[in-house]
Amino acid sequence: MSSNPRVTVWNENRHERTNPKAKEIYPGGIHQAIARFLTKAGMEAGTATLDEPAHGLTDEKLDNTDVLIWWGHLAHDEVQDEIVSKVQQRVLDGMGLIVLHSGHYSKIFKALMGTSCSLKWREADEKERLWVVAPGHPIAEGIGDYIELPEEEMYGEHFDIPAPDELIFTSWFEGGEVFRSGCAYTRGNGKVFYFRPGHETYPTYHNPQIQRVITNAVKWAQPVKRELPVRGNVQPLEPIGAKG
Amino acid sequence: MSSNPRVTVWNENRHERTNPKAKEIYPGGIHQAIARFLTKAGMEAGTATLDEPAHGLTDEKLDNTDVLIWWGHLAHDEVQDEIVSKVQQRVLDGMGLIVLHSGHYSKIFKALMGTSCSLKWREADEKERLWVVAPGHPIAEGIGDYIELPEEEMYGEHFDIPAPDELIFTSWFEGGEVFRSGCAYTRGNGKVFYFRPGHETYPTYHNPQIQRVITNAVKWAQPVKRELPVRGNVQPLEPIGAKG
Amino acid sequence: MSSNPRVTVWNENRHERTNPKAKEIYPGGIHQAIARFLTKAGMEAGTATLDEPAHGLTDEKLDNTDVLIWWGHLAHDEVQDEIVSKVQQRVLDGMGLIVLHSGHYSKIFKALMGTSCSLKWREADEKERLWVVAPGHPIAEGIGDYIELPEEEMYGEHFDIPAPDELIFTSWFEGGEVFRSGCAYTRGNGKVFYFRPGHETYPTYHNPQIQRVITNAVKWAQPVKRELPVRGNVQPLEPIGAKG
Amino acid sequence: MSSNPRVTVWNENRHERTNPKAKEIYPGGIHQAIARFLTKAGMEAGTATLDEPAHGLTDEKLDNTDVLIWWGHLAHDEVQDEIVSKVQQRVLDGMGLIVLHSGHYSKIFKALMGTSCSLKWREADEKERLWVVAPGHPIAEGIGDYIELPEEEMYGEHFDIPAPDELIFTSWFEGGEVFRSGCAYTRGNGKVFYFRPGHETYPTYHNPQIQRVITNAVKWAQPVKRELPVRGNVQPLEPIGAKG
Repeated sequence: MSSNPRVTVWNENRHERTNPKAKEIYPGGIHQAIARFLTKAGMEAGTATLDEPAHGLTDEKLDNTDVLIWWGHLAHDEVQDEIVSKVQQRVLDGMGLIVLHSGHYSKIFKALMGTSCSLKWREADEKERLWVVAPGHPIAEGIGDYIELPEEEMYGEHFDIPAPDELIFTSWFEGGEVFRSGCAYTRGNGKVFYFRPGHETYPTYHNPQIQRVITNAVKWAQPVKRELPVRGNVQPLEPIGAKG
Repeated sequence: MSSNPRVTVWNENRHERTNPKAKEIYPGGIHQAIARFLTKAGMEAGTATLDEPAHGLTDEKLDNTDVLIWWGHLAHDEVQDEIVSKVQQRVLDGMGLIVLHSGHYSKIFKALMGTSCSLKWREADEKERLWVVAPGHPIAEGIGDYIELPEEEMYGEHFDIPAPDELIFTSWFEGGEVFRSGCAYTRGNGKVFYFRPGHETYPTYHNPQIQRVITNAVKWAQPVKRELPVRGNVQPLEPIGAKG
Repeated sequence: MSSNPRVTVWNENRHERTNPKAKEIYPGGIHQAIARFLTKAGMEAGTATLDEPAHGLTDEKLDNTDVLIWWGHLAHDEVQDEIVSKVQQRVLDGMGLIVLHSGHYSKIFKALMGTSCSLKWREADEKERLWVVAPGHPIAEGIGDYIELPEEEMYGEHFDIPAPDELIFTSWFEGGEVFRSGCAYTRGNGKVFYFRPGHETYPTYHNPQIQRVITNAVKWAQPVKRELPVRGNVQPLEPIGAKG
Repeated sequence: MSSNPRVTVWNENRHERTNPKAKEIYPGGIHQAIARFLTKAGMEAGTATLDEPAHGLTDEKLDNTDVLIWWGHLAHDEVQDEIVSKVQQRVLDGMGLIVLHSGHYSKIFKALMGTSCSLKWREADEKERLWVVAPGHPIAEGIGDYIELPEEEMYGEHFDIPAPDELIFTSWFEGGEVFRSGCAYTRGNGKVFYFRPGHETYPTYHNPQIQRVITNAVKWAQPVKRELPVRGNVQPLEPIGAKG
């Protein structure tokens, strides 16, 4: 692991061009807002968006990406299957992946989880409180007992995901629901973190504690330095048949 | 596993003798209320209480117990260490254990968890809603998306337990907290289920859905039929030194 | 859960028609051998094979299947994507799935796992010893410390699967490798069990202990009786904005 | 997390004073050998031993310890209960703990696990091969598919521990057994890693790959920087009774 991970922030970047409220909050797009605070934290943070060729995810870009962040919502279906497969293979080979908010329904997240990833939801400007349930986890470093967001979209259980390898946050919502809102997985050699908050019409990614969690998650999700495991047909390491 | 588990419901049985409200709700004690609905469900359910000799947990009683249920609060310290060690060994040998509500702070639960088992709490007659986060688990059979209790004591995160092997319920509280309220573990050959609700001044154990969860949990926690694993010094199964 | 699960044993059924050794050991095909011992154990066990219309997995057949068993090897690619998606949805809705041996590389298992599911392998008639690492699990009921198979194909780590929700068996191989050979998962409302042994040229499915494990696994993988969780846009359960 | 963790290597230090073979391999004791390679890796590594006052684990020493390493065997019973409780509390408060080899049977490991921690064992100079089953885990960084030790004591399943939060290594033994030999846990705010190899009569801790694993584990086990969670009686964050 390095102290200087190279991050690519991928964003659909549609809401921010059409929805005045989203545009106002994230004038350069959510990807720019996220890349900015990661850069301030000393990381090399670039961006990629849906409407670039190959969605901005060329082999060269991916070769220089330790951790990929993913925000999508309206246009999950427009992401080419070929790119999704390529990203999935990169994760299995060790690249970190952080999936944000409505990215729960992206092709890449569903492919890695193997489940529907569906959930309850509601847009009602309601309060969310993200409680830390794993205070010893590096993703929760520097965070108090909870993070409070005055207004967010609600996501409620049952969230159809595999039980997280590590559950780090659980959200309380004003309207009466709970949600597993910070979920860590290992898939192949790669680490995956799903983090719930971040509806496009609220300034969630400007919140310093949310920024801290995403920054922590990037550090945690960096690939470990090692060869990929050998697979396929192999010779025995011990003589066979020498035994009783 | 059998369809007819033998259950012993252990209760401290102090509140019900001194607190008028508890006495009114559970005239024979919480243990009797629980034993009654388990008996109706076709199980052989007996009881044991703190003030009986050996706390009612003689070897003979434990020899005839497949699953032990534990409710305690005021007098955790009065439970003899010797009995705690005996119960712990029984669990490791396969006996199921269901720990209810304030039993989170019992000697037996702390010994099996290895952590402080402490938490936030508040008595304020507030609403609790237990959301199912593992709908495929047998302990959630027959339960809808959630169970709503109009008034309960609040328990809040961070709950200092090992991450559950399986997290089945998560509670929403009116006052703003969440809690991992249905937690399943395996320890040795035995299964352990912690289930949060059940403050002595509310009729929680008369709620049919709560009864269903506890009944499901007893079925799930039954010992599997098998020999205990061999441990200690063993002979090799293969010749040593025959190899390159 | 019922004591009488309805099982469908799906088999590619190609080796048994072309390889004399496989044909000799499993004259009616592996599916018939498995269905036979499940029927003896009191279950309703039917079969389905690759070359039947819809691979034998019609809606009617699946409507009457509590647990599906899957054996495939040579012809994973011939399984239609549409059938794979249908089976995946059934699992998420609660149907149990038991994947055997070379089924690790089937489309359905890879879709549910989200990983490559690749591994090391070797055909060298070597000894396998499956050690029980979760003696309290119902799938290990009635099994001693280990199961020994005098000759099997070797599968070795690293096996590219998500860390199992429950690891029940780990194999020792004569040639020097180990393998996580009994892996339990929950996906959606459904349970999935991967069980390693069963190369077509060895009489593994005639071994009483292997039969016991598969029988136990069918019981464990039965759907729990419940409604599917509500998902989608929902109304609040509590008034929003009534708070400070 | 810091790049410069402060480590205390605790050792019983009895074998090395009485057993000529152990003395020859580890002239200054196992603790010195371990502290030496950690120091070379840039860490601040001190030591503590059983026969020092307070077993060398004064409050001041523990105040300056980020990660504690534990090796014990002959004299587990001589470790004072008071010191064990103090160390357990430190772990729950965030201190990392790495338990080596026969430390599986130490009071501190058993207290944190809640199980018997017993196992099969044999001293027969046999080959051990530790396979990586979690190649993406930071503790496996820089390690190939496996580590081979020409001669070690055997530990075999069933190992009576809670299912590890993360299983990183599984051992193959020449005599026919397997063992979960690298097991990661979180308990409270602290991280715990059990690592099997290291019998006193073999030069295991001089093996560069074993040194790499222990060094990786120290980095992984460092405390995250954060306040301890608030626990006890708390005021509501939301008005109670304002709801329907």
